[in-house]
Amino acid sequence: MIIPEPLQLAIEEFSKFPGIGKKTAQRLALFLLRRHTDDVNRFIAAIEGLKENLHQCKTCYNITSSEYCEICSSPKRDHATLCVVEDASDIFAIERSNQFNGKYHVLGGVLSPLSGVGPESLKVKELLERLKSEDVHEVILALNPNTEGETTALYINKLLRGLPIKVTRIARGLPIGGDLEFSDEATIGRAVIGRVEYT
Amino acid sequence: MIIPEPLQLAIEEFSKFPGIGKKTAQRLALFLLRRHTDDVNRFIAAIEGLKENLHQCKTCYNITSSEYCEICSSPKRDHATLCVVEDASDIFAIERSNQFNGKYHVLGGVLSPLSGVGPESLKVKELLERLKSEDVHEVILALNPNTEGETTALYINKLLRGLPIKVTRIARGLPIGGDLEFSDEATIGRAVIGRVEYT
Repeated sequence: MIIPEPLQLAIEEFSKFPGIGKKTAQRLALFLLRRHTDDVNRFIAAIEGLKENLHQCKTCYNITSSEYCEICSSPKRDHATLCVVEDASDIFAIERSNQFNGKYHVLGGVLSPLSGVGPESLKVKELLERLKSEDVHEVILALNPNTEGETTALYINKLLRGLPIKVTRIARGLPIGGDLEFSDEATIGRAVIGRVEYT
Repeated sequence: MIIPEPLQLAIEEFSKFPGIGKKTAQRLALFLLRRHTDDVNRFIAAIEGLKENLHQCKTCYNITSSEYCEICSSPKRDHATLCVVEDASDIFAIERSNQFNGKYHVLGGVLSPLSGVGPESLKVKELLERLKSEDVHEVILALNPNTEGETTALYINKLLRGLPIKVTRIARGLPIGGDLEFSDEATIGRAVIGRVEYT
């Protein structure tokens, strides 16, 4: 092959990223190759900083550069409501909505027997321990509306059944700006089932 | 903002890549954050290797890890045909077609007055020098079929007019596997103009 080995190696490394194919990987590697060394060093430093400066919050397993994350350390957040998410990126998404002022708990994945992910791989035990020690009134299960997310939500709901805690899940329905005509049957079905009365 | 600074920094760095938006950048940064440190170090080493081990071929300005690229050093390649391309990635693309056995010359860009790219920013002078010292019979202009590519091709064609060298350009027409119904007018127009007689 005519592509020199160091370039080939960089292309292979970029191909390992999710959603990055061979052609995009080549484009990204060539872009780096053409950039100024200072810019490339800045990129490398940022990546090194990721691994060196970030870790999981000791309470909620969110990503943080401190011992406890910004949300867990904030006195302004509602301690009584706990939102359970799959991943820290879900926290960023929910925070952008500005509709939630409680705290979070990151499971670090969802149940997936086929991929060998059982409850022991997730922060489920840690969730139960938090519920024992913290004064939580409501647990919101904000998992993705797919088979694995729903299964995990059902599993956690079952675990919490005995506790004096309200367990809810985020609503499913038509996305804002969405279109009935172009929505899939499952989404429309859930929107009909979850209809809300005008008050 | 709730995203910790080291992560934000990595997301910004990833956003600088062409075709990578904020959301993809976040996905890529989080993917790296979740990977094993060894894997991340391997990625960093590959990027460092790009800048340290690769440079331009002294003859054709292709990317190479040696002084002269694999194609320029090969005794099997036809010295009499020179294919002029915008970028080293175009060489990889043409090589994949297995239809060209000559040598290459990388311009390192195309003329773009609006972006301040004039002939002096490209390896045009170097091309003329090669044509003086090397025994080239044909120059193939393999530039992209867009305004800037066509302009650059016309410019080089004009420069070479006095020389005893055949100047050609790669054909424009329907792509293989393409469909007349879904092709744009410009492509169909060029395909009609460039029609070839059955022999």
